[in-house]
Amino acid sequence: MLKIALGQMEVIPGHPDKNTEKILQMVEDAKCQQADIVIFPEMAIPGYFLGDTWEQPAFLQDCEECGRKVIEASQDIIIMFGNIAVDWNKKNNDGRVRKYNAFFTAKGGKLIHPDNMPYPFVIKTLMPNYREFDDTRHFFSLQKLSRELGTTPDQLISPVTLKIKDRRYRVGCLLCEDGWSDDYELTPLGILKKQRSIDFFVNISASPYTLGKNEKRHRVFGKQAKECHAPLFYVNNVGLQNNGKTIYTFDGVSTVYDAGGQIAACCQEYAEELSVVDLEHLSELPRADLPEEPDIAHIYRALAYGILHFLENIRMKKVVIGVSGGIDSAVAAALYNRVVGPENLLLVNMPSIYNSETTKGLSQKLAENLGCHYTIIPIQYSVEHTIEQLETTPIEFLKSHTTTHLKVSSFVAENIQARDRSARILAAVAAAFGGGFTCNANKAETTVGYSTLYGDQSGFLAAMADLWKYQVYDLAHYLNDVIYKKEVIPQGIIDIVPSAELSESQNVEEGKGDPIQYPYHDFLFRAFVERWQKATPQDILEWYLEGTLEEKIGCKAGLVKECFPAAADFIADLERWWNLFTGMAIAKRIQAPPILAISRRAFGFDHREAQNGPYYTMKYRELKKTLLKNDTTD
Amino acid sequence: MLKIALGQMEVIPGHPDKNTEKILQMVEDAKCQQADIVIFPEMAIPGYFLGDTWEQPAFLQDCEECGRKVIEASQDIIIMFGNIAVDWNKKNNDGRVRKYNAFFTAKGGKLIHPDNMPYPFVIKTLMPNYREFDDTRHFFSLQKLSRELGTTPDQLISPVTLKIKDRRYRVGCLLCEDGWSDDYELTPLGILKKQRSIDFFVNISASPYTLGKNEKRHRVFGKQAKECHAPLFYVNNVGLQNNGKTIYTFDGVSTVYDAGGQIAACCQEYAEELSVVDLEHLSELPRADLPEEPDIAHIYRALAYGILHFLENIRMKKVVIGVSGGIDSAVAAALYNRVVGPENLLLVNMPSIYNSETTKGLSQKLAENLGCHYTIIPIQYSVEHTIEQLETTPIEFLKSHTTTHLKVSSFVAENIQARDRSARILAAVAAAFGGGFTCNANKAETTVGYSTLYGDQSGFLAAMADLWKYQVYDLAHYLNDVIYKKEVIPQGIIDIVPSAELSESQNVEEGKGDPIQYPYHDFLFRAFVERWQKATPQDILEWYLEGTLEEKIGCKAGLVKECFPAAADFIADLERWWNLFTGMAIAKRIQAPPILAISRRAFGFDHREAQNGPYYTMKYRELKKTLLKNDTTD
Repeated sequence: MLKIALGQMEVIPGHPDKNTEKILQMVEDAKCQQADIVIFPEMAIPGYFLGDTWEQPAFLQDCEECGRKVIEASQDIIIMFGNIAVDWNKKNNDGRVRKYNAFFTAKGGKLIHPDNMPYPFVIKTLMPNYREFDDTRHFFSLQKLSRELGTTPDQLISPVTLKIKDRRYRVGCLLCEDGWSDDYELTPLGILKKQRSIDFFVNISASPYTLGKNEKRHRVFGKQAKECHAPLFYVNNVGLQNNGKTIYTFDGVSTVYDAGGQIAACCQEYAEELSVVDLEHLSELPRADLPEEPDIAHIYRALAYGILHFLENIRMKKVVIGVSGGIDSAVAAALYNRVVGPENLLLVNMPSIYNSETTKGLSQKLAENLGCHYTIIPIQYSVEHTIEQLETTPIEFLKSHTTTHLKVSSFVAENIQARDRSARILAAVAAAFGGGFTCNANKAETTVGYSTLYGDQSGFLAAMADLWKYQVYDLAHYLNDVIYKKEVIPQGIIDIVPSAELSESQNVEEGKGDPIQYPYHDFLFRAFVERWQKATPQDILEWYLEGTLEEKIGCKAGLVKECFPAAADFIADLERWWNLFTGMAIAKRIQAPPILAISRRAFGFDHREAQNGPYYTMKYRELKKTLLKNDTTD
Repeated sequence: MLKIALGQMEVIPGHPDKNTEKILQMVEDAKCQQADIVIFPEMAIPGYFLGDTWEQPAFLQDCEECGRKVIEASQDIIIMFGNIAVDWNKKNNDGRVRKYNAFFTAKGGKLIHPDNMPYPFVIKTLMPNYREFDDTRHFFSLQKLSRELGTTPDQLISPVTLKIKDRRYRVGCLLCEDGWSDDYELTPLGILKKQRSIDFFVNISASPYTLGKNEKRHRVFGKQAKECHAPLFYVNNVGLQNNGKTIYTFDGVSTVYDAGGQIAACCQEYAEELSVVDLEHLSELPRADLPEEPDIAHIYRALAYGILHFLENIRMKKVVIGVSGGIDSAVAAALYNRVVGPENLLLVNMPSIYNSETTKGLSQKLAENLGCHYTIIPIQYSVEHTIEQLETTPIEFLKSHTTTHLKVSSFVAENIQARDRSARILAAVAAAFGGGFTCNANKAETTVGYSTLYGDQSGFLAAMADLWKYQVYDLAHYLNDVIYKKEVIPQGIIDIVPSAELSESQNVEEGKGDPIQYPYHDFLFRAFVERWQKATPQDILEWYLEGTLEEKIGCKAGLVKECFPAAADFIADLERWWNLFTGMAIAKRIQAPPILAISRRAFGFDHREAQNGPYYTMKYRELKKTLLKNDTTD
């Protein structure tokens, strides 16, 4: 009987002291439960997303010292854990001190040396450098080390041998990406499998939540266990980590796969948990059936967990939301209300002459349904004062001593309204209320910068900026139907046409609203951002010509013809949004609030971008020419 | 006689069509000058900093097509150039298509195959992954390729053999970092040197400007040429490239090092130039003496070039600057005035009751000296209206139907002023004037977030956010003395105490001002950000105890004792700023405008950071305890 404990802990990035305290507590718990081994996640001591904190020698020393405390605690139990390992005598390729992303195994106060490693720890072999990952920037891989030593990874990758109750167990130790080797030149698991019989595998991870990732992991890791005829213990952390602009929840869901590849046990998502299983009796565990749920249920939990922990991190308790009577701010209100409670939530409606009675009424109704704080602060007077001040103040050209005046266009006046709401009112209200105000932008708006900088593009967090508009509607229904089990978001808000209500041309009473046609543009924009092979106007036009566009981007069949009767309309629309997406919208995203990631490609540090202006390939330009020529002759 | 042309071109990132056009023009020029070889920079076709544009297959195809055009143009001349090379049959480690950062040599419309490479181009071997560089994210290195092929880099790295006028030249081809191999496991240049005699080396680069980098490069590359007894041709591009938040100028300064390691020829900085030299007569060239200039001269040129090109990129001609009568906005005004001209510059002074007659007068004087547009738009009325509106509007708690009111503290009122200036006035004025408004923050303020979000922290560009306060003063003198050759920045602005003038406690007439004591804090903050081994409070306290702090951080001797008579004061100050630097200031930087980089560590994509909150190592806490104990017993 070998009892193994999965230490699914919350890792607090950049705070090795707190993480070590947590580890030591869980070690004690594991001992109480007679566990022989307790396993903690990758980088359990320092955290994983730390930016360039890795360049502080004092921080590295601190992590080493914390590691020593954990090693000392390994009396009567084996502790497996992730930490940074520093070789102060060697260098990384950037000239800074050598750092490994390492897997330590301690027993009786000492480290157990993996069979063939040059250090008393296992070194991460595969370094992810896509999406939010930057491993190569900081960590020296086993591949580089083997080259430096004049050997090969095959010679170094080796199991850790544990002696427990007179039995020897050979453990295949992997760090996160080591188990996702499909696109690499080598397979750490394959090398371990070939060498000698492994009793079980342990994969310690720091794996952020992405919609749909766990299902894929269950397939990939289940297959690995089956092929190796050995159980696999996957231990992931919970918590919140960020790279500045993009914030990731870590959902845990640590899992035991039995030798047949089935899920033998599975920790809860987003909860700290010490789960103890018996290696020899995995198949006798009640079959862990994961509930089938719609995507939006996962998204809701990621958002709620993310918001809660982000607020805790920045020590903010109170939240202010500008509510317009539209869907985005209403969903934000219902979501935050659930997290902070109505006593800590203040909704502010800020009408101008362009705001309809309908939306003003819906805002009030929403606030009443939530029972939170509510106030109405009109902006009309201030906006008019600003316009007047600008138009009446003389501007002197000192070179020639001539005087001119500015003219405020209707477009400029729209942005004045948006900034008046956010920068003048909400920022001050939030400070006086003792909290922060939210950015309620969705991903479609964020993609094309349909927003005003220092206006609705501002706030302390953009919690919904990784949700397409259709997901915002899904979330509205989910909040009403499942979370609140009553209509907190009035049906009127769900039904009304999306509109900024910044001018007469956006009059919702007349059914006028946003220029974004979400049922099509959600999917077009998704192809620009989230598609594995990122789509550009060239691809879009090729699909349009082939008649496969709707299928390729995933929108409703027949929609394209409906929206754009002629090819010229289609092209004008495509270029309008591509120009914005790769132009002004980047400038806005550079100054946007942090974004909570849920998709497989969030803006910020995940989807990285340079402010280089729109570009159309030569092939696109040819296709367009041909198409427009045919179009007019038709 | 072998004539070699250095094609120091401006590379426009993400616009292969324009870059190809430029290359083809310069090829024609080189032919006219009877050059046998013309060399273009690394990634001359696509540009280098493109974010995840590398994930667009259509863009990659476009770059390939452009490459074919350049190859076709190699009739009667040899063209060496950098481009992305794609192997559509293989994959990168992220699963996307295989991409190499490649060095092509074309002759007679065909590529010349390097002696032992598996492709008809040279592949970059060393991949920088520090500062702003992310090569591993997108490009597959020669090291990885050699592992995949079951061989070693030594077997693949090989010269390109050119046959010109019945002579054979062996050329050692390197890409940028390949020439900076000090901290890598292998040295591409060393491998080439060992193999067989090389006639000359070519290093094509895309190397952003950093203060002091060229001097280092001349030392390192001169030494390489000398050790190899062969000339080295270094070709760098000019232009502006960015990673979103951080913007880099590329200064060119392409250089020919002769076989003795001396600089035989050197292109101008920040200028497109086709420079032709004769390989056999390098030593006969007039010795290229680089002028010795103060740092601030280089900084000025980097800023002026960066601003000019950034404005061109975003197609902005007019600029609005809020001027306070303080040093930062005055230097910004004089700098932008030089770039856009007084007819395109509007200075706006926005006084409240806290602004002194002195600073208002100095603002006016500055504008008069520049001869630009000037206006005064007071904020007092609007600020009072906002405060009144906030304090008189009832807030209803709908759960209990109780009503409360907000109270605006003096701190909140300070931020209301800052936002009123930027988000209410400057943003609208800029839009009406047809331009953008600047962020005038310096690096000291940016480090600790001494600024208001959506207030003085906003703007389209933070051109001076990589300059410490002492560099801002240096720049003021340089602008007056060297650029304008008269006092455009009034001496009063240089002499006055730096102050935000947002409350009575910041009254400049009484000599009151910023809480940042720049002569000390500039250097303390620099140690946090720019030091090779980043300093933390632990290091600072250790140096303080050793008595080496001033020497270590580079501030004036005796200053620390002067500022902080007791250790407790010193510690309180240290923790105050460390808490801000690693706390609220990160939140502000996430939403800050793009920053023009000049130092060896700029904020944004260069110095990367996560919003993880302040941390003090265990050792720091011990040191502090000991110190404070001794302090009180003294």
